[in-house]
Amino acid sequence: MEKSDLSHHILSRYNDDLERVRTNVLEMGGFVEEQLKQAVAALVEGDSRLGEQVARGDAQVNAMEVAIDDDCSRILATRNPAASDLRLIVAVIKTITDLERIGDEAEKIGYIGSRLATVERPADRYREIKNLGRLVGEMLHEALDAFARLDPEGAVQVARKDRLIDEEYEALQRQCITFMMEDPRTIRRALDVLWVARALERIGDHAKNVCEYVVYMVHGKDIRHLSVDEVERHLRTRTQSGDEAASS
Amino acid sequence: MEKSDLSHHILSRYNDDLERVRTNVLEMGGFVEEQLKQAVAALVEGDSRLGEQVARGDAQVNAMEVAIDDDCSRILATRNPAASDLRLIVAVIKTITDLERIGDEAEKIGYIGSRLATVERPADRYREIKNLGRLVGEMLHEALDAFARLDPEGAVQVARKDRLIDEEYEALQRQCITFMMEDPRTIRRALDVLWVARALERIGDHAKNVCEYVVYMVHGKDIRHLSVDEVERHLRTRTQSGDEAASS
Repeated sequence: MEKSDLSHHILSRYNDDLERVRTNVLEMGGFVEEQLKQAVAALVEGDSRLGEQVARGDAQVNAMEVAIDDDCSRILATRNPAASDLRLIVAVIKTITDLERIGDEAEKIGYIGSRLATVERPADRYREIKNLGRLVGEMLHEALDAFARLDPEGAVQVARKDRLIDEEYEALQRQCITFMMEDPRTIRRALDVLWVARALERIGDHAKNVCEYVVYMVHGKDIRHLSVDEVERHLRTRTQSGDEAASS
Repeated sequence: MEKSDLSHHILSRYNDDLERVRTNVLEMGGFVEEQLKQAVAALVEGDSRLGEQVARGDAQVNAMEVAIDDDCSRILATRNPAASDLRLIVAVIKTITDLERIGDEAEKIGYIGSRLATVERPADRYREIKNLGRLVGEMLHEALDAFARLDPEGAVQVARKDRLIDEEYEALQRQCITFMMEDPRTIRRALDVLWVARALERIGDHAKNVCEYVVYMVHGKDIRHLSVDEVERHLRTRTQSGDEAASS
């Protein structure tokens, strides 16, 4: 093999490494999305077996996180990635931590779902939880989509949805408190519903984190702890000035 | 400068880099510990100004996380750390994520503390919360201590405390539910106390995560998602077989 062929060969193996990591993150994301969907379904449909299945499935999420983490450490040690490749690896290490925690929240919802399946269901059949679960599921799906397409502008749009989810969560919390005050016998169930709502709200926070890592990955800008408006202003300025860092 | 002097100089600058990162993590940890202590004090003593001060202080925690993260990325890009140095950097990136989230939980406790300062305080003056807060504070302090001393055996002992905290939290939760059922007028306040207890329980989880990163950093073993007993067995086996990975 010629020397240039060899270096091309090594380079292409390196690109394979990065591509594999990205694919594995998306696979993990897809699995976590499914866990979320089924956890909410277990609660809403009162399906205790489905709830237990979700709870058991969390071991697989954990195993995926550990495998991707190992892969990233190996790439850092052997490939010495720089600039945008390094940002990809750092963003992946952070993203899978959030995905793993989304898995934990889905596991909790699964447990509560399987427990509530044995008690009488409320008249509204957890309509509000179903609604909040759908919103959060969409947000997670779109966050992973922005990750797949390396689309920072899309990611910022998705991050905006976190506020809507927080508002829905606040409304649901107020409703639960009213129910509890009107009929103290419903306190236990209402608290379980509150925990589920809280878990969904946290999943929204984690999805927002994923969006922030997409912006960091593409633009090298750490936008955590900035408001969405500040980030949009920042992205606009970069686009106008020719986006110097994206080319580094 | 002689060539060997130069390489020694570069090496010592590299060691300075790693040492600075470790020091900054411990500084961030110390600040977060203080935030936790003051947040609980604000609630227990009904000090609304202290609660607000903690909430405002979270911006500093966030700034510390971003600065350490940037430092780690720079070291990864310029120094190409290998083996235990690489594990240090990866462990730091993960540790500061958990410290930042402990800061978020302290912020929440601060907010609730400043709100509850204006309402009548319960007869027990939040004794249970004070107790749980002390336990969690000790666990966090010891976790950071294990990080500072690179002490995996100590870290495993600290990680064990998470179960005690979970039990205390469960007891507090049951107590709150009983109060709510006995007197529905206390529901709002009892829920706030529940949120604080939940935040403290989560801080325990994050402290446990820090312990796990200490083991990873020293032994190169990812012990997340293993039981504490499995980890102890593993550490014993390694010590008997001469701890091959620690020397890599």
